[in-house]
Amino acid sequence: MKTKPNVLVSNDDGIEAPGLARLVEELETFANVYVSAPYRQQSAVGHSITIFYPLRVYEHYKNGKLFGMAVEGTPADAVKIGVMNFFKDVKFDLVISGINHGTNTAINIIYSGTVSAATEGTLLGIPSIAISLATYSKVDFKTASKVAGKIVRKILEDEDLKIHKGTLLNINIPNAEENEIKGVKITKQGKSYWEDDFEIRSDPNGRDYFWLTGRMVITDETNDFDIIAVSDNYVSITPLHYDLTDYHSYEEIKNWKIEL
Amino acid sequence: MKTKPNVLVSNDDGIEAPGLARLVEELETFANVYVSAPYRQQSAVGHSITIFYPLRVYEHYKNGKLFGMAVEGTPADAVKIGVMNFFKDVKFDLVISGINHGTNTAINIIYSGTVSAATEGTLLGIPSIAISLATYSKVDFKTASKVAGKIVRKILEDEDLKIHKGTLLNINIPNAEENEIKGVKITKQGKSYWEDDFEIRSDPNGRDYFWLTGRMVITDETNDFDIIAVSDNYVSITPLHYDLTDYHSYEEIKNWKIEL
Repeated sequence: MKTKPNVLVSNDDGIEAPGLARLVEELETFANVYVSAPYRQQSAVGHSITIFYPLRVYEHYKNGKLFGMAVEGTPADAVKIGVMNFFKDVKFDLVISGINHGTNTAINIIYSGTVSAATEGTLLGIPSIAISLATYSKVDFKTASKVAGKIVRKILEDEDLKIHKGTLLNINIPNAEENEIKGVKITKQGKSYWEDDFEIRSDPNGRDYFWLTGRMVITDETNDFDIIAVSDNYVSITPLHYDLTDYHSYEEIKNWKIEL
Repeated sequence: MKTKPNVLVSNDDGIEAPGLARLVEELETFANVYVSAPYRQQSAVGHSITIFYPLRVYEHYKNGKLFGMAVEGTPADAVKIGVMNFFKDVKFDLVISGINHGTNTAINIIYSGTVSAATEGTLLGIPSIAISLATYSKVDFKTASKVAGKIVRKILEDEDLKIHKGTLLNINIPNAEENEIKGVKITKQGKSYWEDDFEIRSDPNGRDYFWLTGRMVITDETNDFDIIAVSDNYVSITPLHYDLTDYHSYEEIKNWKIEL
């Protein structure tokens, strides 16, 4: 790298999340880092954008220093307005969303605000990466941010590692010590899914309300799939895109005859 | 059809939307129809689900008769709780989301609550269809619901038209008279995209707020793509899935060497 690369960082856990703070610290050792992130926790928002309401934005300070821009909106909103307005004179080399507190593999990807922020970066024509740490326990993100930093730096510096236009990388880091991590594995999105349930509770006035619960059903078997690779202590990198066409079905049904 | 099929109807425009009402009327001529839809307008929510908050639900009456269940949540929430709780003893033959007021083609699909409701149906193992009317003008949905009814009935009755497990159909109906509609075309998701902008306004206290605006850039050329087919007065049917893996990139990058 001749000059420092420019990186926009966002997330879905909100601008005060420790996973974002640690990632920014790590990236600042080799990049110019700009932050535009949701004001509040936004998990499971999927790829939402705010069109019916205006967006309010705030400068966010940390230890008396401007840390970044906080957006009262979704992860996709934060990336869009960051690139197009707050930092519109910056030529970004990368958008990074993370580090998310929790796994984003298999079916969870379609609900993921973290992946959504990276998707938005890709839509804006910037190579983009979503990064998640595969645990819901309280963690300090130190190892994860170190690992993330190494991978990001390699991708920025190595001419052979180019992210295809229209593709984003979804990275999941196992919650393990550095010496326990077996390496990096390029994977596919797993087919594992949720078996959902709703818990019915009563409020203090005796009215019912519902709470979503569920358990993940693991149907994937090899570490060619994200969910298995990460549980097997590999860093999983999955190339994703936003062309949802089911080409296999397309070939099957393209000659359907439906008269109106 | 020996017995009447069971159909769950949802949407993202909310339970009071005329597009849903017309669709239900039409489907009731040949199916048992159950409604579980968001309480409020939910457009551009993407594939969100509510996990941090409880869901409140209400019986929704119309002309003194129970019309369906209203869910204070997203389209995906409404389908999930409809299938798993409200109507858990019903064996559904189809989930239909719509009729959405506005096009759901090309890149818009990834922001679409309408498509999200159908995705949720597919995840629950039920063949699912999203239906949109390609206009933002005030319309009565009469022609669109008639056309939708014909297609749905054909798919339910014709043994040769099976929806592949894991696939959903995204249908866009042109806003045209019945005799102007040229027919049905099986399509792929277009590559057309938004060129976004943010309008900056001032509130009465002089504080700035931002509003997302933009224009669609049409890059697709043939009516093999949803966006062109529907503007060419075809009913567009696109098979979608939720495997976001970019298999083309996967093959390209699967041998990346990244040392940690």
